Amino acid sequence: MMSGTERPRLTVARSPRPRYTAPMDRRLQEAAKANEGWALGLLKGFCRIPSVSAQRRGIREASDFLVMAFRDLGLRVRRVRCGGNPAVIAESPPVPGGRSILFYNHYDVQPPDPLDEWSSPPFDPAIRGGRLFARGAADDKGDFVARVAAVHAYRKAGIPLPVQVKFFVEGEEEIGSPTLESVARRLSRWLQADLCIWESASRSDDGRPHIELGCKGILHGELVCRGAKTDLHSSRGVIVPSPLWRLVWALASIKGRDERIAIRGFRDRLRPVTAAERALAASFRPDAGGAAKRLGIGRFLLGLSGARLAERLFFEPAVNLNGLSGGYQGPGSKTVLPREARAKFDIRLVPDLEPAEIARLLRRHLDRHGFRDVRLEDLHGYPAARTAPDHPFVRLAAEAGTEAFGRPALIQPTMAGSGPMHVFARRMPCIGIGVGFGGSRIHAPDESIHVADLHRGTRHVLGVIERLARHGRNP
Amino acid sequence: MMSGTERPRLTVARSPRPRYTAPMDRRLQEAAKANEGWALGLLKGFCRIPSVSAQRRGIREASDFLVMAFRDLGLRVRRVRCGGNPAVIAESPPVPGGRSILFYNHYDVQPPDPLDEWSSPPFDPAIRGGRLFARGAADDKGDFVARVAAVHAYRKAGIPLPVQVKFFVEGEEEIGSPTLESVARRLSRWLQADLCIWESASRSDDGRPHIELGCKGILHGELVCRGAKTDLHSSRGVIVPSPLWRLVWALASIKGRDERIAIRGFRDRLRPVTAAERALAASFRPDAGGAAKRLGIGRFLLGLSGARLAERLFFEPAVNLNGLSGGYQGPGSKTVLPREARAKFDIRLVPDLEPAEIARLLRRHLDRHGFRDVRLEDLHGYPAARTAPDHPFVRLAAEAGTEAFGRPALIQPTMAGSGPMHVFARRMPCIGIGVGFGGSRIHAPDESIHVADLHRGTRHVLGVIERLARHGRNP
Repeated sequence: MMSGTERPRLTVARSPRPRYTAPMDRRLQEAAKANEGWALGLLKGFCRIPSVSAQRRGIREASDFLVMAFRDLGLRVRRVRCGGNPAVIAESPPVPGGRSILFYNHYDVQPPDPLDEWSSPPFDPAIRGGRLFARGAADDKGDFVARVAAVHAYRKAGIPLPVQVKFFVEGEEEIGSPTLESVARRLSRWLQADLCIWESASRSDDGRPHIELGCKGILHGELVCRGAKTDLHSSRGVIVPSPLWRLVWALASIKGRDERIAIRGFRDRLRPVTAAERALAASFRPDAGGAAKRLGIGRFLLGLSGARLAERLFFEPAVNLNGLSGGYQGPGSKTVLPREARAKFDIRLVPDLEPAEIARLLRRHLDRHGFRDVRLEDLHGYPAARTAPDHPFVRLAAEAGTEAFGRPALIQPTMAGSGPMHVFARRMPCIGIGVGFGGSRIHAPDESIHVADLHRGTRHVLGVIERLARHGRNP
Repeated sequence: MMSGTERPRLTVARSPRPRYTAPMDRRLQEAAKANEGWALGLLKGFCRIPSVSAQRRGIREASDFLVMAFRDLGLRVRRVRCGGNPAVIAESPPVPGGRSILFYNHYDVQPPDPLDEWSSPPFDPAIRGGRLFARGAADDKGDFVARVAAVHAYRKAGIPLPVQVKFFVEGEEEIGSPTLESVARRLSRWLQADLCIWESASRSDDGRPHIELGCKGILHGELVCRGAKTDLHSSRGVIVPSPLWRLVWALASIKGRDERIAIRGFRDRLRPVTAAERALAASFRPDAGGAAKRLGIGRFLLGLSGARLAERLFFEPAVNLNGLSGGYQGPGSKTVLPREARAKFDIRLVPDLEPAEIARLLRRHLDRHGFRDVRLEDLHGYPAARTAPDHPFVRLAAEAGTEAFGRPALIQPTMAGSGPMHVFARRMPCIGIGVGFGGSRIHAPDESIHVADLHRGTRHVLGVIERLARHGRNP
């Protein structure tokens, strides 16, 4: 997911009251239990594939792996591509008079660097202290395997699937899903389902599963400054414009030390947060001091804590710098006036910030502030999406989570991170559940999950399927 | 040298009137001519050694090469070291009642990167269109070989050296000469001479040799910002401080878009430029439009041209960014909140800006502006130095240059670049002459010199030695 871990640790405030309670079929429970070793093996095999979309590695291998896994489940499988990395889709037969559920996942992962900060190689899964360490373990090969393991449990238990399941696994999520809209257009009819289970949610430190009802949108890009046509000796810096200084000034014009985004028109477009959403945020009570300490920072931005911190995390847009580069970065010093400087950035979008509109506002901002020479490159992204907290399926997913994890689920109005949920959310309610935890370090070195959460996550998916089947019969 | 090429092209305004005119001994001229092939071969051999001090490469090999070359000249040679790369020193016997001349050079060179921008490998010297391309060809192995070739001509012609020559060749100039002061203290008596010939000056496009009377000082360092103790997912950027943003804001506080250095106290310490220095600067008439076009920039900073541009180049300090780094710099995008950001910088110092004092002012500036968390690392440097334009040896060097290059020499009050001249300038007058040209691209890919300038430079050195001998006899 393009969401995040290392989130502030969360403690309990309120919890949903269960409604669709009913014990899971014993055979199903036993089959899931018996399958745990198989599921872990599948996950390790999947994590061994370095499917880094940004670096165009392991894409074919990963999609082949999926085709194989889906055939093994007895599903009908297809590869669909619209110019980018293929999406792999699979489905079970429709259940007459029954519901359908669509699982969204992605098989691509983030680049593993910096490599020297991994305790074990990122693509050689290792188990230490009950945790599985590998790039993709949490984001989101673990989530995917929990879904496959749930479907596999029916097969193993000899119980027919009570709902139709559909898998949509794309290979470009970590690079902003550039061809997802085209793929979705082509699959428009196939994509219909009653409920979409999204990737990504993780549990809090005290074991409460999170149910996520949305994703932020995102705009990726690079600011590029050029100076003289070659690198020069830095003694020229007194008379020749420096692209590094231009970049610094352009960036400083976008966001100041008060953390306010200075792009004119940006904040006017923010949709007000609803009371229901704010109430959900209020149920999060981040242990700001403890979390800041674990992160090695003095305090969170603007000194926020408690519900105000949770609100900022869920509801505020952000302009993030992902990478700065330009000039000499080797050992020692080099007195060079470099010819180019770059800043990779992402802007986290909330409803109703449309990426194309934000890109336009950013360009206008730069022009207005005297930075016509600063180029915007590689702009791409998608808008935010949210499912209404009062949708009946929200309670359904929360109940299943409460049962699977043995602790009351917490409903998050949105992820802090981004995902192309909007493509799905305009067709059906989307609900994020997952197998990560607060320390999963997704996108970072030593990404990991607790192996036990993989199995809890499998039971969570089973619970959702079971409840959806009953819900179908008794609407 | 830590000075620069790609300087604005210069045209003639005034020229010094020759005084110590006297034809050079014919045997000497013929020996120098006969030696040209030998000198070029020596330079190619020297340039083949990748003596990059910043990367600790080729240091032993280069100092061995020098020892060999000096022995071949019949000089007494020693290696001197005070913890850093050794300096290689050599000398001829004193001339009773005669003068002495000290040649300053360095055998280290700048890192050759970016390698893919070289037309031929940087350490495999290549001759194209009468030019020798190699890292170090101009800065400053070419200057050094011109001096060796001059001394060699006396040997070849069977004429005793009319002055004592001393060579001081250090191996740390390109990393800021960190142990030069200690070496100089140890060699305090040896370092006495009547005149020091500095590395580095080059000729203008119309063939006029430059005589440089000073060097700027320099303060190198890095600004380092740290955030959380590991890289995080960038969705956390809305609540976790970003070291990349901190770096941007800290840098923007140091210098604004108006190019004014905002460090309090910085400008108070500038020594006023003398009338004589300003007059020399006024004799430079940079072709600002043409030079800017060749560099691929619209115009020079602040739109300057003419004498104002030359004055800024010679007399203004500068804060330069040499490299920015932090986060993901690979292909595509990575939504990471990096844990560290760095900016390598150099500050070009004019008299009387002392590096230690400037470092203190910079630290105080950061503290005052709320950047106590921003660290200053790897600070080192040295002050500026200037020789008075009215010293009689200045005219001597200019005359010799006029004769050697066949065009009137131009006297530059200082280099725009830096060098540890202050160590020498407090003991004797220092005068910079050299074999580079306006397009030598020192510190950059495709560094080169015109081979003919190597030989003109040799004659320039011969002329200085001859004149100094006569000057000695007729003070």
